[in-house]
Amino acid sequence: MSLLVVGSVALDSVYTPFGETADALGGSAVYFSVAASLLHPVRVVGVVGDDFPVPELERLSAAGIDWAGVERARGESFRWKGKYSYDLQSRETLETRLGVFADFRPKLPAGWQAAKYIFLGNIDPVLQLGVLEQMTAPRLVVCDTMNYWIQGKKAELMALLGRVDILLVNDSEARELSGDWNIHRAGRWILRHGPKMVVIKQGEYGALLLERERTFYVPAYPLEEVFDPTGAGDAFAGGFMGYLARVGSTDPGQLRRAMVYGSAMGGFAVQGFGIRGFENIDYDAVQKRVGAFVELTHVPSAEPIP
Amino acid sequence: MSLLVVGSVALDSVYTPFGETADALGGSAVYFSVAASLLHPVRVVGVVGDDFPVPELERLSAAGIDWAGVERARGESFRWKGKYSYDLQSRETLETRLGVFADFRPKLPAGWQAAKYIFLGNIDPVLQLGVLEQMTAPRLVVCDTMNYWIQGKKAELMALLGRVDILLVNDSEARELSGDWNIHRAGRWILRHGPKMVVIKQGEYGALLLERERTFYVPAYPLEEVFDPTGAGDAFAGGFMGYLARVGSTDPGQLRRAMVYGSAMGGFAVQGFGIRGFENIDYDAVQKRVGAFVELTHVPSAEPIP
Repeated sequence: MSLLVVGSVALDSVYTPFGETADALGGSAVYFSVAASLLHPVRVVGVVGDDFPVPELERLSAAGIDWAGVERARGESFRWKGKYSYDLQSRETLETRLGVFADFRPKLPAGWQAAKYIFLGNIDPVLQLGVLEQMTAPRLVVCDTMNYWIQGKKAELMALLGRVDILLVNDSEARELSGDWNIHRAGRWILRHGPKMVVIKQGEYGALLLERERTFYVPAYPLEEVFDPTGAGDAFAGGFMGYLARVGSTDPGQLRRAMVYGSAMGGFAVQGFGIRGFENIDYDAVQKRVGAFVELTHVPSAEPIP
Repeated sequence: MSLLVVGSVALDSVYTPFGETADALGGSAVYFSVAASLLHPVRVVGVVGDDFPVPELERLSAAGIDWAGVERARGESFRWKGKYSYDLQSRETLETRLGVFADFRPKLPAGWQAAKYIFLGNIDPVLQLGVLEQMTAPRLVVCDTMNYWIQGKKAELMALLGRVDILLVNDSEARELSGDWNIHRAGRWILRHGPKMVVIKQGEYGALLLERERTFYVPAYPLEEVFDPTGAGDAFAGGFMGYLARVGSTDPGQLRRAMVYGSAMGGFAVQGFGIRGFENIDYDAVQKRVGAFVELTHVPSAEPIP
């Protein structure tokens, strides 16, 4: 089943207590694709400026990422600069330069309009809607957003929510969007405003899949060494969507398994700077980690005690 | 298998965004016992002053709580006053009055020294050791502590750690004790200093059971209404120990099931002020909630995808 992502293709400068990167390959569409392509081919829609190190993208094509939908525009590429606290629990955005993203209007290459599995990465909801309107037969539409759009383009975001199947956000975004600090009530609020399901990522704790009648919880993979949290949420989305596209199903059981793939990918993402956490990861490594999740939450013999 | 707890029997005054209580029944031994007694009889060691509303304790005896080890001393009972933030995520201690706890030396009633399952609730580690030294054949010793003792009686606490099977603490305590912000490394540090296992409670997220070779994660029960987080950790301990005493086993599988019982009891605790969250809870209600945890984390068919 064809998988398409629209999102940022960026140059990130990240400061952590363990080191820093400057103008490293990043952005929501990149993290998503690097994770998803371990499970299924991905087509990317986005834009880069004429300063972008395109060979770095091309190097990833071999893994099954098709960059044909990434426009090369005149001007500067999207850049993000951020700094993490000593315990990686919080981060501060030092600088955001939209560059060519400011005038971006996503246009899909011929044939891409028929994609079945679509992830609308964290960009302007107007652009997310612009992509969705080009799709002819989507089977599953998942979108992300962030506080910036919740504050600045709430009406457009709410219009988008009415047209997506799943909103996938982190807990602070769910709280800000709903105006409710209780994460389960926040989730219910979102479910009343369009999406059939909501995935709420909770960083080092794990992630929730909320449906009207049910809740599923997957923990984060236990890691003693975390280097760079950047992109973990997009890698989660990549694992989630990559798995669903691979099995070609959105059955309840497969959605739960997709959550485990998402959490596994989020773990890989934070184990290295930028996308380096994925450098030596192949399909077998993914399967091994997914298997470890079973052990992590398995409760033997569920029958009542005597 | 006999179950014994030593801890505080207190009068709590709690302020939350949803209301307040004044001099309400509380303390680690009380929360522990109310939860544990839903699964197994409990014997309590502690102290109250001559101002304590003893009939309130006696009312709970019918549930299987034996207060014969609670000394009645001259003076004021232990009192704690605290205030929670609007989102219940943090709390401030407004006042702690040790009262009769200041001169307390735990002394076990005849026959209680042979208890098999022992929970050393959050009191001075010197007193915790004092109880432990009276035990003749403990099968499982679990202890709690808090930042106050980590800062003030580190040496005594470390001596205690060398003699317990499981340390059961919350994440901030594990971090402070180990000096490491990564919760998994903090857990490893604790495992190198005595206990065979460590349970790390993470509030609304759930709890971890760390052993040398394995990690288990149980989420918190999803709740849209939380009224008073006071006592949730002790109720968790009560469910954990009550279950183990009931089944008379510390097998790895039973320890995981005990974690689920702990998380279930933590959920009940926060659903009402003080111990009121347990008011209409019986064994069947516990079983029903434990059953719901299976659904909450169940991942169908663990075999690799095609």
